[in-house]
Amino acid sequence: MATRVLQDLGVSPGLAVGTAVWLRRASAEIPVRTLAEAEVAGEQARFRQAVAEAEAEIGALRKRVAKDVGEAEAQVFDAHLAFLGDPAYTGEIERKIVADRVNAEAACRDVTEATRAMLASLPDEYLAARADDICDVGSRLLRLLQGVAGVDFANLPEQAVVVADELVPSDLSGLPKQVVGFVVARGSKTAHTAILARTMRLPAVYGLGDAMEAIADGQLLVVDGDTGFVMVDPSTNEVEKARQARQVQAEAQARAEARAHESAVTRDGRRIEVFANVGKPEDADAAVAAGADGVGLFRTEFLYFDNDHWPTEEEQYEAYRRVLEAFGEKPVIIRTLDIGGDKQLPYAQLPVEENPFLGLRGIRYCLAEPDVFRTQLRALLRASVHGTLWVMFPMVENVSEFRAAKEWVARCKKELEDEGVAVREDIPLGIMVETPAAALTADVLAREVDFFSIGTNDLTQYTLAADRGNTDVASLYDPLHPAVLRLIRMTCVAAEQVGIPVGMCGEMAGDAELTELLVGLGLQELSMSSAFVPLVKERVRGVDTRMARAKADAAAAAESPEAVRAKLAAVDGAGTAGEPL
Amino acid sequence: MATRVLQDLGVSPGLAVGTAVWLRRASAEIPVRTLAEAEVAGEQARFRQAVAEAEAEIGALRKRVAKDVGEAEAQVFDAHLAFLGDPAYTGEIERKIVADRVNAEAACRDVTEATRAMLASLPDEYLAARADDICDVGSRLLRLLQGVAGVDFANLPEQAVVVADELVPSDLSGLPKQVVGFVVARGSKTAHTAILARTMRLPAVYGLGDAMEAIADGQLLVVDGDTGFVMVDPSTNEVEKARQARQVQAEAQARAEARAHESAVTRDGRRIEVFANVGKPEDADAAVAAGADGVGLFRTEFLYFDNDHWPTEEEQYEAYRRVLEAFGEKPVIIRTLDIGGDKQLPYAQLPVEENPFLGLRGIRYCLAEPDVFRTQLRALLRASVHGTLWVMFPMVENVSEFRAAKEWVARCKKELEDEGVAVREDIPLGIMVETPAAALTADVLAREVDFFSIGTNDLTQYTLAADRGNTDVASLYDPLHPAVLRLIRMTCVAAEQVGIPVGMCGEMAGDAELTELLVGLGLQELSMSSAFVPLVKERVRGVDTRMARAKADAAAAAESPEAVRAKLAAVDGAGTAGEPL
Repeated sequence: MATRVLQDLGVSPGLAVGTAVWLRRASAEIPVRTLAEAEVAGEQARFRQAVAEAEAEIGALRKRVAKDVGEAEAQVFDAHLAFLGDPAYTGEIERKIVADRVNAEAACRDVTEATRAMLASLPDEYLAARADDICDVGSRLLRLLQGVAGVDFANLPEQAVVVADELVPSDLSGLPKQVVGFVVARGSKTAHTAILARTMRLPAVYGLGDAMEAIADGQLLVVDGDTGFVMVDPSTNEVEKARQARQVQAEAQARAEARAHESAVTRDGRRIEVFANVGKPEDADAAVAAGADGVGLFRTEFLYFDNDHWPTEEEQYEAYRRVLEAFGEKPVIIRTLDIGGDKQLPYAQLPVEENPFLGLRGIRYCLAEPDVFRTQLRALLRASVHGTLWVMFPMVENVSEFRAAKEWVARCKKELEDEGVAVREDIPLGIMVETPAAALTADVLAREVDFFSIGTNDLTQYTLAADRGNTDVASLYDPLHPAVLRLIRMTCVAAEQVGIPVGMCGEMAGDAELTELLVGLGLQELSMSSAFVPLVKERVRGVDTRMARAKADAAAAAESPEAVRAKLAAVDGAGTAGEPL
Repeated sequence: MATRVLQDLGVSPGLAVGTAVWLRRASAEIPVRTLAEAEVAGEQARFRQAVAEAEAEIGALRKRVAKDVGEAEAQVFDAHLAFLGDPAYTGEIERKIVADRVNAEAACRDVTEATRAMLASLPDEYLAARADDICDVGSRLLRLLQGVAGVDFANLPEQAVVVADELVPSDLSGLPKQVVGFVVARGSKTAHTAILARTMRLPAVYGLGDAMEAIADGQLLVVDGDTGFVMVDPSTNEVEKARQARQVQAEAQARAEARAHESAVTRDGRRIEVFANVGKPEDADAAVAAGADGVGLFRTEFLYFDNDHWPTEEEQYEAYRRVLEAFGEKPVIIRTLDIGGDKQLPYAQLPVEENPFLGLRGIRYCLAEPDVFRTQLRALLRASVHGTLWVMFPMVENVSEFRAAKEWVARCKKELEDEGVAVREDIPLGIMVETPAAALTADVLAREVDFFSIGTNDLTQYTLAADRGNTDVASLYDPLHPAVLRLIRMTCVAAEQVGIPVGMCGEMAGDAELTELLVGLGLQELSMSSAFVPLVKERVRGVDTRMARAKADAAAAAESPEAVRAKLAAVDGAGTAGEPL
């Protein structure tokens, strides 16, 4: 059989070679059937058989996870096993088969749903979380009743590529080490599992749709998460070439990690700061270890979401202090609260909006709720003496908003000084450039602020009027649209003209394939997940600024995102995959 | 007492001088109180008194509307009177006062709400519409019970300015001729009543908030709907100056109307097309009469919304033909269907989206639903022989979308020709420029399309990431933000470079105060509500292109919308208000 090549979205970079293992699920269509008197006993037996099989599967899974991951992680499966032996659950399903004379699938679905709803409604958080467990057990039983074999995780091939119509986050918990990649019919780069795949550094290609029918269990696959190519049944020669490329890639990563703590300087001597995005204080040490030159984006939302009250000044101070101390003299850019109507807080009433992404978000919210803003600013200023704090305001799109925010900082500083609390003098105040308005008037804003950080996720969705969470328009959401590249370039030019730093902290910054383009567009700092810091640094070292500028200009002049990709690939083709250009 | 000057949002232009008449409503806080045995009879009497007063008010209103507006319009009040005498309504309220021993306000609110819910749930459309009537009657009764006097419309001063915390559309139906303007605490330019005020050509200032407390019934007010100024208790001299300005304005409007059918040519000989926006075929004649040089935007959504089935090819053909015939050789730009998840169709299931403005809208929807698109394109092509059709696609933001749409046009044309149906050869195909992406890459798109039309409403909300329907961010939504002006200029420059027409069909185009700015930004065509056509034409005649360009460049370089306004006002100050510059 000839090699077949499929292509769609590379959502997690790297190259994987392995055997296809289909992750199949119960069909969503549950047949409901009334049983004849004579059938009841048989149906009961069929259900008991499914329970026995489920026990065997979960038992094996528990054993493997205990060995590969740890005993604590394995204990979640004990809850699953307990449900299988619970008369209020499996017993109730059997009773329903007999009493209602319905087939086992229908009885199982109904009792699972009723149990789930009951559990979810409980005030006890521990018990409410069991609602997820019962769903997991129920869908396993349904799959077994439908005669659909599950993945035999205990007997995986040495290198396995998981193939599925869709992945959910729970599929990725306790995944065996043999799994080397994913090929998935539905989903995009921003899917939760795509982000997890990137964090786990497992290559993944998503969005293949019906083309997936070409893949059968046991076939050899080559998965290229950079280009989105999947080779089905490749020749020995093709596999060899892919393996070599993979080897080159692994060596590049190793080389990059060896030099992770050196600074990233282009061939022509231009220093690019490679920073980390940090979501919680406890991630700061990992960022330092990964070689980050600083923090480009410390999100403060966790203080508000993982909480049952507005975080106090003291709670915030401790969190900011921790990150600032971890980085010492290296800059830490802390973004003030960026919430809006799309996320609710358990202890506060936010407005329900028809288009929350176009509503009361970021600095708009903080200026409307001065008490919330003031508490955060006081905590930031108090923490400033423990490191090198830069403060960044989200969603600013005109000078009045920035001036109002700056005025609040001055007021809080005065307050603290009057109280005798030390505050660092030279705290740079900057803004996220994440609306088209801010990028288009970057020249005006640059005269007021101390630094820019471009947020490509929001900038892309506003520029293209495409919600990145909406699958109907996911194909339109593309940061390589020339319009987005032009806004990035405009922002960098404006910053350069007045001599303020300009960085980027969106998803895009962590994509090593785009490093040369971003340096060419004029970025001086790139901030990303810690995992990508070494490779991006290494890529920077291969960049020649003049050539990068020419390439960036060509990309910005291209007619479409596809044309931009073609231009980038054309020049990349000259080098070796995985090598710095 | 010295004159007091308030200022906020001018939402409907023109100048009004008149006496303040407060439109007061029932307080939203309804006290609930249990009556002592002895109080019940008194409460019943109080309620009957309120019913009698309501009857008197509605009777007077009915009489006035019958005289001023017409008998048909007056008949809606018969339904109100019928409710007042209905034992199932007012009788039920009295029973509740006695049986539940509650105060009249509480009983009235509860019975009104129950009756409303019952009516609204009826399948009969006529009866369901009565739900609004019962609300109207109920709130009138509540107001009277609270002792709040209504406006005595029968005895208005000769020139009355209606002053209110908020206006709802029903407040404006059957308004007496004495009303010359509005001053309102809440609301913005896009409020439904603001649009109605503009259509009625009554000056209005919105958004004054607590400053409204300075206005008392009977005070003289001068309302300037252009600048947003409200003068309270002005001196005779000030009123005289305002009256003179008003006279000048009225003369300007008269002069403009006298020349409405002449073309609009700038002082330096540049012709600007002044087109009308048309929402329904029956509005076409009014647009021709107003002097429109063509139709800049014929919205086709009415065919889909005012319907219980997908509009057939024949139904659409008739509508398009009607408008094309009305305009003959003058161009009619028909926009293909622009719906999205924010509006539901009774006969079709559209996706429910978290951010509908960033979802499956405009051309995205049509390309995803080819049957809907094909029917519309066939109807358009068939109608093309009856006039000068230009076809415009909404929400296009990359060349692939336009090419796909163009391909569909070619396919439908081929189909019709194969069926022997005549289709006009030279139909220009253009796009709405209403996303930042389209404006930023207008140079790329200009090479593909036959014309541009800038949709400032959407362009503004995406550029500023501010939903114009969301009151929390309404103050941010401003088409005079320099970022929006820059996008408009970019689009015009791109069109000029390849020699294709560029127009504008958003709200902004109809604002005569902005005509010079828009010509200066490079627009060749402006499309607006028919009512504004004469004045905008007259304004064009006063424009000098070179000066307008300089002014536009200064505006685009300004630091904020406020600075843009200041720059525009500074130069305007040299001329006389209402005079062409």
